Amino acid sequence: MTLHGSTTDRTADFHAHHAPVGALASFTVGRFDGDNGPGCEIGKAIPGGGVFAGYRDGDGPIQLLPFFRIAPNERARYGLEAGAKQTRACFAASEIRRDYGWCTDRWSAGDLQLSILSPLGELPDPATASRPAARDAFCPAVSVRLVVRNPARVQRTAVFALSPGGEKWLPLPERNGLQTRGGLGLACAHPAARWFTNFDIEGELNRTHVQPLFGLGHVGGLLVDVPAGGEVVLDVAIAWYRPGPATAGRPMAYWYTRLFSGLDDVVAHQLARTGAVAAACAARDAELAAARLDDEQRFVIAHATRGYYASTQLLDDAGRPRWVVNEGEYLMMNTFDLTVDMAFHELRYHPWALANVLEQFATDYSYRSRVFHPAEPQRLLPGGVAFAHDMGVTNIWSADGRSSYEIDGLDRACFSHMSCEELLNWVLCAGVYWSKTRDRAFVDRHAGLIGECQRSILNRDHPEPAKRRGWMQCEDERCRGGGEITTYDSLDHSLGQSRANLYLAVKMWSAHVALAALLRELGRDSEAAASDAAASLTARAVCAAADPATGLLPALLEGGTKAPIIPAIEGLAYPWYMGLKAACSDTGPYGAMIVALRRHIQAVLREGVCLYADGGWKLSASADNSWASKIHLCQHVARAVLGVRQDAVAARRADRAHADWQRIGAADHAVSDQFRSGRAHGSLYYPRIVTAVLWLDEA
Amino acid sequence: MTLHGSTTDRTADFHAHHAPVGALASFTVGRFDGDNGPGCEIGKAIPGGGVFAGYRDGDGPIQLLPFFRIAPNERARYGLEAGAKQTRACFAASEIRRDYGWCTDRWSAGDLQLSILSPLGELPDPATASRPAARDAFCPAVSVRLVVRNPARVQRTAVFALSPGGEKWLPLPERNGLQTRGGLGLACAHPAARWFTNFDIEGELNRTHVQPLFGLGHVGGLLVDVPAGGEVVLDVAIAWYRPGPATAGRPMAYWYTRLFSGLDDVVAHQLARTGAVAAACAARDAELAAARLDDEQRFVIAHATRGYYASTQLLDDAGRPRWVVNEGEYLMMNTFDLTVDMAFHELRYHPWALANVLEQFATDYSYRSRVFHPAEPQRLLPGGVAFAHDMGVTNIWSADGRSSYEIDGLDRACFSHMSCEELLNWVLCAGVYWSKTRDRAFVDRHAGLIGECQRSILNRDHPEPAKRRGWMQCEDERCRGGGEITTYDSLDHSLGQSRANLYLAVKMWSAHVALAALLRELGRDSEAAASDAAASLTARAVCAAADPATGLLPALLEGGTKAPIIPAIEGLAYPWYMGLKAACSDTGPYGAMIVALRRHIQAVLREGVCLYADGGWKLSASADNSWASKIHLCQHVARAVLGVRQDAVAARRADRAHADWQRIGAADHAVSDQFRSGRAHGSLYYPRIVTAVLWLDEA
Repeated sequence: MTLHGSTTDRTADFHAHHAPVGALASFTVGRFDGDNGPGCEIGKAIPGGGVFAGYRDGDGPIQLLPFFRIAPNERARYGLEAGAKQTRACFAASEIRRDYGWCTDRWSAGDLQLSILSPLGELPDPATASRPAARDAFCPAVSVRLVVRNPARVQRTAVFALSPGGEKWLPLPERNGLQTRGGLGLACAHPAARWFTNFDIEGELNRTHVQPLFGLGHVGGLLVDVPAGGEVVLDVAIAWYRPGPATAGRPMAYWYTRLFSGLDDVVAHQLARTGAVAAACAARDAELAAARLDDEQRFVIAHATRGYYASTQLLDDAGRPRWVVNEGEYLMMNTFDLTVDMAFHELRYHPWALANVLEQFATDYSYRSRVFHPAEPQRLLPGGVAFAHDMGVTNIWSADGRSSYEIDGLDRACFSHMSCEELLNWVLCAGVYWSKTRDRAFVDRHAGLIGECQRSILNRDHPEPAKRRGWMQCEDERCRGGGEITTYDSLDHSLGQSRANLYLAVKMWSAHVALAALLRELGRDSEAAASDAAASLTARAVCAAADPATGLLPALLEGGTKAPIIPAIEGLAYPWYMGLKAACSDTGPYGAMIVALRRHIQAVLREGVCLYADGGWKLSASADNSWASKIHLCQHVARAVLGVRQDAVAARRADRAHADWQRIGAADHAVSDQFRSGRAHGSLYYPRIVTAVLWLDEA
Repeated sequence: MTLHGSTTDRTADFHAHHAPVGALASFTVGRFDGDNGPGCEIGKAIPGGGVFAGYRDGDGPIQLLPFFRIAPNERARYGLEAGAKQTRACFAASEIRRDYGWCTDRWSAGDLQLSILSPLGELPDPATASRPAARDAFCPAVSVRLVVRNPARVQRTAVFALSPGGEKWLPLPERNGLQTRGGLGLACAHPAARWFTNFDIEGELNRTHVQPLFGLGHVGGLLVDVPAGGEVVLDVAIAWYRPGPATAGRPMAYWYTRLFSGLDDVVAHQLARTGAVAAACAARDAELAAARLDDEQRFVIAHATRGYYASTQLLDDAGRPRWVVNEGEYLMMNTFDLTVDMAFHELRYHPWALANVLEQFATDYSYRSRVFHPAEPQRLLPGGVAFAHDMGVTNIWSADGRSSYEIDGLDRACFSHMSCEELLNWVLCAGVYWSKTRDRAFVDRHAGLIGECQRSILNRDHPEPAKRRGWMQCEDERCRGGGEITTYDSLDHSLGQSRANLYLAVKMWSAHVALAALLRELGRDSEAAASDAAASLTARAVCAAADPATGLLPALLEGGTKAPIIPAIEGLAYPWYMGLKAACSDTGPYGAMIVALRRHIQAVLREGVCLYADGGWKLSASADNSWASKIHLCQHVARAVLGVRQDAVAARRADRAHADWQRIGAADHAVSDQFRSGRAHGSLYYPRIVTAVLWLDEA
């Protein structure tokens, strides 16, 4: 557990996701005096939401963790204004300690401990899992454990309550708890606990009327008495259940509606297994604690894991499961340039999910198009298969072969096409999937597509072999004379444009290497040799671009900015993960490029080039917009593939900086991706940061 | 049509509801630089919503009606900052004329006219209506007609679009239009119109790419070219469709789901009948224009009618229709103290709706309780039947016999019980319903309940006949020693407390009179005589309270404030409506009370007592909180029942003040009820103001 708050120099005041698997939901908690609570299908904490956890002795002030907004006109009641009578109290930041583990997030203050449990399991394939296993894996609920001791001599009342942004509550029949019409549940199994709804906690604790249900009350919760000298453990389930079609375009329900009959079924199941969940979380916490990482790295892995599941969605396509990872706050579905980064996490815990997404891209979100060379934009040349940027947005599936994001006819601007990059991504994902699972049936099923991908990649360099240069020269016809972009859509051209991009060139090399391996697996050696040759061409092009004096590689291999970029090395991650060590070796067939990339990364990891003043990594020397997911991926590549390690002081400064970007710079937004000088400014509440899982493979 | 804006001294800058019947939805439009657009189940305009209607010549500035918020960083584009290049334009308030009819709301500016049509029909009983009649009456859609002329020599493009608060769009299959996943539709039948989605209007009109669908675009709309010298009439349907259970507690779907298969069916039906809708609206506009009322009164009636339907909900309770009127912004369902005020409107256009609500109260939301006298709160006495304040909130039905609002054990504070008032309300509603419809089956079906009501009312004065005083003395046991309140829950005790309240006493008299009539209809003459006697007792108590010198009646018949109140006369409305003219006559059995009430109202209608400085009516001399619905009801009683008319100048000032309260004081909130010195501060987006319909009976 990474300690935060009192007794440490790390703030405890930041949001974290706490999410079930596949429900596109998160119980987002941690920001003091902010919006806290359960969000579903909104990619963020619920606006206006509050979480109330605490206790009260007799009629004294109510002691609460500060997970709600204190309105200006309520400041007096909290003793925040001199001389005012205090009827509530928040624990001060200085009184709160937060133990942040991989799966347990625990706040301790006064005589209470509040833990939110987010187990990380190897998820079974829903297509084949037994019903009991599936009910455990995909139960749309989060467990919360509130422990309150009472060393005092008077009776203490403990409270746990939610205010989900004004929504009203009604009883949850046959359970000790409440539900909203929107499908949120809150329940416990404690026989002495009492549910209530009211306007606020103070009104509830001073209530003189008997009926616990006040229909207009938007605060719903549970009370339990803690006898003098005793202790109470209150296990709470927070659950979501949305029946019926949850998506438009292609109508699908949540998979959990096959497994659970309703909210009452969900909370009963979750409450019955809270002990097992807590034990599983503790085991994972211990596993991470034992990893050869520093505390800041452990924090980032834990924070990223939580964020990933908050964006996941498991849907029921007429009996076939569909895995969707939403794009954080943007809610785009299965954005492919995120899939390729998150593949490492998925392969570790649920490789079927990656295959499922690849199948969806192959079946529904691929297209065949021609290309053009920018010197002759009117002349369309043979191209080949490519894949859409995403599959839709806000639970609206896009039409076949179309993303929600891409617009035809733009020129290297946000919302242009990412045809080439997404094509490479399908190949790279297929490569790492096959290498991890040895799922030969998958490779056989897509044998034709793999060949199509090879031809399309070569054509997107140039359809005429003699004119190939080893990098993407030709633009997709959907650009209509304009140009493609990369996943780095909000950066300048150093990373944003696809054509001649160094980052994309190394990724293309990586795809050639992966294709060669896949084609050999299929026994198509002569085709594999063509990919070998293409990889060599790219490697030579990269080497040729290096500045002999400095070793720096320019961001663009032709024209435009020369600014150095860290993601030059990003593409190495895939062959390395596939175990193709020779391809990544100084003495292998691409040794010269490996050496050049090592020299490049050593040259750029300096303050003022690709390091910020706080020691954090700056992806491009020419842009103040650095993405946590990509930094963590490139850290892994530098260390594991290239053997480049910052010195211990610099490495610790970088780790601390990246953790503080999340805790301070993204305090309002849980785990986030895009940072400008340490402040999150986009890609909030994001799933992609799980690239950090690769660090666990480095030991 | 009441004219507003340019050429008049009335502002055109105010919100109005435009609602279908029974869908709890409204297309709320009219506020410049504000949130405009379609709201469903939220009791207000959609936060962040915008409506874009206008046109553009070539690549000149886009001319739009100002029904959207202009962000500070966009002010330059609108030419609102000196020297900036203007790429959009809003028509200025000085250029906009608004013709506000009963059913047509029309803005004219430049070469465009935008009309929103809200037909007012005699709705058929859904339990017995033919399917075609029901589809017309309960179609969940609003018609919009945009007319753009083009006297210029270049082609003009007309646009109509919505931005529903960030929600995304997808095509509406088989229609020329769009839908959201939340069940909003936007479509037209114009063969040359083209739908689109985009980030904004400017982006769309400058679009160079071909595909009209941008998945991330939250602005969805329709474009149509207007040739030089020509004119285009673009009829648009805005529709709502929410399938499946729409309520919790008692799960029910919208009735319209029985009548329409989905959004495509709704918009097709609405578009096919737009001509008929426009004609029906024009006929109603003419009817109101011909009424013997001034323009401000016509405005109030039109404004109130729109607000009422925005709160209506027709639900499907396993094949039986349930009529629900929500309480404006508060979304409480069938609040009974609103039902009694809105009864006059419902009896004019759809009396079955009132009967439906009364049946629901009788079956599900009645209770039997004991009472106590405050001198002996521990001693429970015989009471009888009473009715809940409401049936639930935000589509959550309350449990049997319970409202969402009332809390046990409060003492004359907001959220206490309204047992006595709601009991009187059932009797009064039953009385006016029977008198209007002569539905003897209804009276027979409730013959037992009518007797129960009589006994309960008498007991709530006092169970011992000798101790009765003619007004409510005994509190309901649910108050547990505390006290009941009236519908005037946010006022001081002059109107807020039930016990000894003059307003409630006259309403009790009214209920006695109504009961006597109902019991005579049932042939139960001796029981009727008991109600006659009770009415006489009340009348004597009222007369006895009058100050002989001034004629003023105190707000409370015992103890507390003596502040005079206008609603002393409110209860007279019911016997008068029932045609019981003798009861309301100076020479009838209660003549002394009638004379006393006339003397009272004449005495209070003075500035500084119950008139504001602007001439508006102030319900209580001791509270700055005056309710439009009740003012309009009491205006009717004063004029029609008591023959009290303000002089022409004062009357016109009052009418103008009340209209300006709505247009200026509630500009952001469409028709609203509670005003403090002319500013709306609660009961926003309210249905109750339809009491003004009674003015149509005065001629």
